[in-house]
Amino acid sequence: MNLENNISKKVYTKISSLKKGLPFLTVIGAGPGDLELITLKAIKSLRTADVVLYDALVNPELLEYAPKAEHIFVGKRKGCYAYQQEQINELIVSRAKTHGHVVRLKGGDPFVFGRGAEEMTYAANHGVDTEMIPGISSCISVPAAQNIPVTKRNSAESFWVITGTTKEHKLSQDVHLAAKSSATVVILMGMSKLPEIIALFKKEGKSETPIAIIQNGTRANEKVGVGTISTIIGVVQEEKLANPAIIIIGEVVNHRASIKKVAKNSIHELSSGI
Amino acid sequence: MNLENNISKKVYTKISSLKKGLPFLTVIGAGPGDLELITLKAIKSLRTADVVLYDALVNPELLEYAPKAEHIFVGKRKGCYAYQQEQINELIVSRAKTHGHVVRLKGGDPFVFGRGAEEMTYAANHGVDTEMIPGISSCISVPAAQNIPVTKRNSAESFWVITGTTKEHKLSQDVHLAAKSSATVVILMGMSKLPEIIALFKKEGKSETPIAIIQNGTRANEKVGVGTISTIIGVVQEEKLANPAIIIIGEVVNHRASIKKVAKNSIHELSSGI
Repeated sequence: MNLENNISKKVYTKISSLKKGLPFLTVIGAGPGDLELITLKAIKSLRTADVVLYDALVNPELLEYAPKAEHIFVGKRKGCYAYQQEQINELIVSRAKTHGHVVRLKGGDPFVFGRGAEEMTYAANHGVDTEMIPGISSCISVPAAQNIPVTKRNSAESFWVITGTTKEHKLSQDVHLAAKSSATVVILMGMSKLPEIIALFKKEGKSETPIAIIQNGTRANEKVGVGTISTIIGVVQEEKLANPAIIIIGEVVNHRASIKKVAKNSIHELSSGI
Repeated sequence: MNLENNISKKVYTKISSLKKGLPFLTVIGAGPGDLELITLKAIKSLRTADVVLYDALVNPELLEYAPKAEHIFVGKRKGCYAYQQEQINELIVSRAKTHGHVVRLKGGDPFVFGRGAEEMTYAANHGVDTEMIPGISSCISVPAAQNIPVTKRNSAESFWVITGTTKEHKLSQDVHLAAKSSATVVILMGMSKLPEIIALFKKEGKSETPIAIIQNGTRANEKVGVGTISTIIGVVQEEKLANPAIIIIGEVVNHRASIKKVAKNSIHELSSGI
């Protein structure tokens, strides 16, 4: 397979095309944290980047795919944003016009609560051509890494992904309907609303429904709590679980116990001959 | 970045570990069809495979990552399954015990309507260690490739992914609730139920809600129809749209028009110097 072998050759032609002065934005999903859960397409694009704008949730080692590019951190540090969204939009356009190929590198998938669509619209409206390269979304892969599938025959015919914090800092009205549905419910950044969420599911008679909370999913400092709607608050207190976390509610959580637990990074361990 | 450079060295140590007789199953998501939307982790794992079981939705060129492995097609051909699910389960276990590392390669993500969880459970119950490597899910990436984000600030705070055909060949009850919600609704394999789906959304006063239908998403033969709940049936007839297709309903569909259309595979075209 010569996909990777072809990379270097192609990269140089790409850069020369970009030097003709074409401003270009590629919005890239970097996946959930594991350095190897990035796509070949993303790596190829990074190698042609002149500027990379990256978030706090992006593994900074990925910047090594773009060693000559300017790297600009535009995420949140110690609770403060380095840049406001409008500043990021402007930076994308100005750097694309002066430097050429701007890569906007985001954790997970840029079209899942990632504001990638907004940035593309802004760039397009300002004369910058755009492309988007999807990433492995945390909403599916973080539960998966804990052996929790979002769907499973006879357990769940659908899954519903909801943000815990709306623009107005209220719990989304959709959670009310979600509690009535048979969907697997995945709530991102919802820890501050957990008691409210629990109350909604209890109201629908779902006290015994399994629930898992995964903090820092797929990372070295990952923490997991598993229980039912009735018991999970106790688990959260005991394990001191907090955001950034994913809440997953539904029978699929029970799948976790049905799989023989294999050590994380088993392929690495095997492959290094350990 | 030496991730790929390290692959070959590691692969050989892995194979020697596996030759010690450890039966192992890796369930891998191959992504939506585009050959480059596979992860580094998946490629590494394929390179250590002794046997690869693959589906119809998997791009067969990916098998070149496992040139020495036995390749077994277990998908649907001309409407007929090559193997029943039970036979696949048994094949995984028997090949793992005789050959070592079995890779089960599936289109999209194996935990999104992929039955990957079932196969892992069966293997685990029969003494085979398992691992899962997520893939880019079609439910998010196929709309994304058409510049339709599943979420967008001020348009959608959640998205709900539903299978159009349940085990009983009926429309999932969840679609009734979905029509009442403010979620972006993504329905997979639902074309035969389209009139029923349309009726449910009309009942909720959503005749003007945008809808897109994407057939053979991200592939060379991709076809797209865009309209509203009122007009889409006409579009489907005109464009002769059918399964395998993804139906996406919500204001986010309008995002498509807000992005300057960039030629597909633009990176390829640029990089080959065209």
